[in-house]
Amino acid sequence: AGTMRIAITPGDGIGPEVVAEAVRCLEVLREKHHLALEWTRFPWPSHAWHEQHGESWPSDALDQLRDYQAILLGALGDPGPVDDPNRYLLPDSISLAPLLEMRKGFDQWVCERPARLLPGARQYLKDDRAKDIDMLVIRENSEGEYVSQGGRLRKGTPDEVATQMEVFTRKATERIVRYGFEQARIRAAARLQEGRTRSFRTLDGRTCESQVCIITKRNALRHWGDMYTEVFEEISKEYPDVATHHELVDAACMKFVQCPWAFDVVVASNLQGDILTDLAAVLSGGMGVAPSCNLNPTDPDMPSMFEPTHGSAPDIAGQGIADPTAMLFTTARMLEWLGRKDPAMATAGQELFDAMAADLAESGDQQRSCREIGTAVCNRLKG
Amino acid sequence: AGTMRIAITPGDGIGPEVVAEAVRCLEVLREKHHLALEWTRFPWPSHAWHEQHGESWPSDALDQLRDYQAILLGALGDPGPVDDPNRYLLPDSISLAPLLEMRKGFDQWVCERPARLLPGARQYLKDDRAKDIDMLVIRENSEGEYVSQGGRLRKGTPDEVATQMEVFTRKATERIVRYGFEQARIRAAARLQEGRTRSFRTLDGRTCESQVCIITKRNALRHWGDMYTEVFEEISKEYPDVATHHELVDAACMKFVQCPWAFDVVVASNLQGDILTDLAAVLSGGMGVAPSCNLNPTDPDMPSMFEPTHGSAPDIAGQGIADPTAMLFTTARMLEWLGRKDPAMATAGQELFDAMAADLAESGDQQRSCREIGTAVCNRLKG
Ligand SMILES: CC(C)[C@H](C(=O)O)[C@@H](O)C(=O)O
Ligand SMILES: CC(C)[C@H](C(=O)O)[C@@H](O)C(=O)O
Repeated sequence: AGTMRIAITPGDGIGPEVVAEAVRCLEVLREKHHLALEWTRFPWPSHAWHEQHGESWPSDALDQLRDYQAILLGALGDPGPVDDPNRYLLPDSISLAPLLEMRKGFDQWVCERPARLLPGARQYLKDDRAKDIDMLVIRENSEGEYVSQGGRLRKGTPDEVATQMEVFTRKATERIVRYGFEQARIRAAARLQEGRTRSFRTLDGRTCESQVCIITKRNALRHWGDMYTEVFEEISKEYPDVATHHELVDAACMKFVQCPWAFDVVVASNLQGDILTDLAAVLSGGMGVAPSCNLNPTDPDMPSMFEPTHGSAPDIAGQGIADPTAMLFTTARMLEWLGRKDPAMATAGQELFDAMAADLAESGDQQRSCREIGTAVCNRLKG
Repeated sequence: AGTMRIAITPGDGIGPEVVAEAVRCLEVLREKHHLALEWTRFPWPSHAWHEQHGESWPSDALDQLRDYQAILLGALGDPGPVDDPNRYLLPDSISLAPLLEMRKGFDQWVCERPARLLPGARQYLKDDRAKDIDMLVIRENSEGEYVSQGGRLRKGTPDEVATQMEVFTRKATERIVRYGFEQARIRAAARLQEGRTRSFRTLDGRTCESQVCIITKRNALRHWGDMYTEVFEEISKEYPDVATHHELVDAACMKFVQCPWAFDVVVASNLQGDILTDLAAVLSGGMGVAPSCNLNPTDPDMPSMFEPTHGSAPDIAGQGIADPTAMLFTTARMLEWLGRKDPAMATAGQELFDAMAADLAESGDQQRSCREIGTAVCNRLKG
């Protein structure tokens, strides 16, 4: 497969700290498994960069990143030092723009966000309800509510009208729904391999090993809600082994709390997926352990982008106390993704995941520094 | 104030059962307090009505309801008997349409949904996190994502494009934001009366008795997100005694779970409010106790509409096991609303709330029938 090249964009806030630990783990894994892996750093802290150059990232950022196989991003969104009297606050609509630009520019049309309560992770739900959370939320990442069409008419006047258009295409709907069903099969197969099973009922009373739940708000946002539902029903016929389910987004939020174990793969639109994944993340241990994988599964020449779901947390940045766990989980996911072309990467990714999970299970409750956690995971990898 | 007239629309599913208990309580209260209160029933079960007449409610439903001071709704959305081979399934986009039509037709531009963990209500969050939930979500109920503009181009073909327009006006934004600030003051005053206080920090370090948090997704849906933010900042200047806060909708979902006590009044758009209120409801005891008040505070001639947040729950309908608590809470809210013109109504509403809350606190865990709960509350009211 040749040498794989990763672009590392640590970003700002706690980004550089957590990325540093990810890089240490990558170094250990590269040496241990003789991985054909190289990386380059792009230090573009959005706030500082904007202050100097008037843009949150260089305008040719996407061109600079285009030739990498993957992008590993720390975090973006630190508005700048708030206690500096000459402070220069960058609104997050600017500092976070590169995220959306990468997703669009590299057609990363899938956003995969697994939620599973790892032993040692924080539980917010009573009665061990969170224990059996094991879902993969697949967020449509290329259109829908995020097309940035709209504007402000008579801006600032009492007669102002602000509009925002949601645009959904059948093509993008079909590919994300089909992707969801494929993932359901892959997950069921992986569970069987591990000797685990789950069972989901179909409407006609059969029992399946896996399930896809489609999310809409079709009782209020009818047009795309109906299209989503129709596409889902059509494609589901190709997957008789996968149970199907439909939830309205508001009811889904409730059920994530009440019966999170009832979900396997969840397919949602861009905004509804954004909301549901934050909720799923917190229910399964908090942002500290949630990875976000922005994937282009169709075009091998386009880089996919991997980021922890957490933000730049400026309030704790620079103190060395950020938890790198989500970043390590994210890095493991990236390696698994690269493993599609080079199995050694997949092995390394699985090893990183196992090390991080073992470390979390053993030390979840302890107060440790970012560096200490990184060191503990590195030591496990060295073994 | 003259006799107040209520329209009661029991709806379908569990609606008629829970409404029956509300009516018994209303009868007791009317007699006890000599309330000048009358009601009329409109039995329009959406599924059955549609089957007979081809529409979910009569086409002149709004005209029939227009002259009432308030509408008390049970539930809508029962698709019909699923085990009947001749079944006639009504999609909820049709059966629920009357809800949206009433909100629009009567310009019920505020949807108020209080969330407070009542003693005896079910807790889903660990560590008593839910105990201090005491928020009022104010949902913009007249525009935004719910304007029903859009359509399906090349419907059913591979090239289909479905669009949905979101339309936000400054006028509606201002009135809902101002309403939020007014409620914050009212709530702070009521707490002081009860000898309770809460404290919220402002950005410049002061401490306030109340807070308004505005919700947007301005980093992705920029146009109305910016307008919301600007309007919020402007209006907040008129309320220096109220602390202000901003959350992105995805982060708000997380924080509702992590630190629900940090919220007081929350102002959100139509869809984001819909999602957040379902989440707030489940965190504070489940749909079993959540009222939804669709208010027109500006036009005294327009009826406001009161409904429990829960749905028609067709799976348990007709068995007499539905929990009428949310319906009683909703009825109490309706009486309080009518109390703006007739203080005796407010007294009765408070009494109903207290009776229902006392009953819940005492018997929350017991399995009781709908009728038993209604009887228990009635007895408290009598006694
Ligand atoms: C930063 C923001 C634009 C982004 C999103 O809404 O997609 C974030 O919330 C996420 O979930 O990755
Ligand atoms: C039934 C549906 C259209 C409605 C809404 O989305 O407003 C419901 O979910 C609610 O919250 O009252």
